[in-house]
Amino acid sequence: MNTTQLNSVITKGELLDHWQGHRRLTRRLIEAFPEKEFFNYSIGGMRTAAEMMMELIAITGPGIVEIATGKTNQLVESFEHGNKKQVFLDKWDEQTEIVNRNWDKITEERFHEKIKSFGEYEGTVHSTIFYFIDNEIHHRGQCYVYLRGLGIEPPFFPQR
Amino acid sequence: MNTTQLNSVITKGELLDHWQGHRRLTRRLIEAFPEKEFFNYSIGGMRTAAEMMMELIAITGPGIVEIATGKTNQLVESFEHGNKKQVFLDKWDEQTEIVNRNWDKITEERFHEKIKSFGEYEGTVHSTIFYFIDNEIHHRGQCYVYLRGLGIEPPFFPQR
Repeated sequence: MNTTQLNSVITKGELLDHWQGHRRLTRRLIEAFPEKEFFNYSIGGMRTAAEMMMELIAITGPGIVEIATGKTNQLVESFEHGNKKQVFLDKWDEQTEIVNRNWDKITEERFHEKIKSFGEYEGTVHSTIFYFIDNEIHHRGQCYVYLRGLGIEPPFFPQR
Repeated sequence: MNTTQLNSVITKGELLDHWQGHRRLTRRLIEAFPEKEFFNYSIGGMRTAAEMMMELIAITGPGIVEIATGKTNQLVESFEHGNKKQVFLDKWDEQTEIVNRNWDKITEERFHEKIKSFGEYEGTVHSTIFYFIDNEIHHRGQCYVYLRGLGIEPPFFPQR
């Protein structure tokens, strides 16, 4: 066990693994949806799974690049997808690499730095990253109910 | 900024605040449910909100005491409630204190220790605590859909 581990409840590397583990689970959730229902099923007037996943994609890549570079990004929650899940899965995989690449650029010392995410949301680097992760878990949990409502078994939650 | 902050992506104290913030939001979710539907509404054959919250209560208090003391606890997911939400809210508040009190007993050095939660789930202290938090966010997200299905506005997600 090194010094960083001794002083940290979770190290930077472990936090990346934690996030990417959640991202792998969310990817399996996208795969589990029938293509049609991914774009048109919803409950109680909520957004569709596609719209919620669009939000996550709008946040994750641009959000982490913003933290790494310090340059403000726009929150743009839509893109051309032609009602194809594959467009989402491709963007998902692209962002997995973007997260990994930019993670290396964020030093441990910066995690307590105050930032304004997307020029608007005040927090620290760590509170912002935890917000990204928690927001993903939150919306994925909602999409689990959509899958159950459709009679489909969602991916196993503890598996990352 | 002290040395612990410099080496930590999130400190032990910040992680407690983070968790308790989520717990405050989940408490507001329980409050938002009509009493009857808390115990009998569900979607797609899933558990009711009461059953999911019972799982969280079964995990949180006993789980943190187990980590603090090293003595294995049982996972018991039911208790007498007489279909009263107040029983849940009282247990919730009791566990808020249990988490705070036991948190002080878990030293930073222990967060990378390997443990077997409830005698069964292998991980480290930090992976176990993050699992508790993530599992709460996941089920709370599902209960947000129940509230929307009932035509009720859920509590504001970013507010902790």
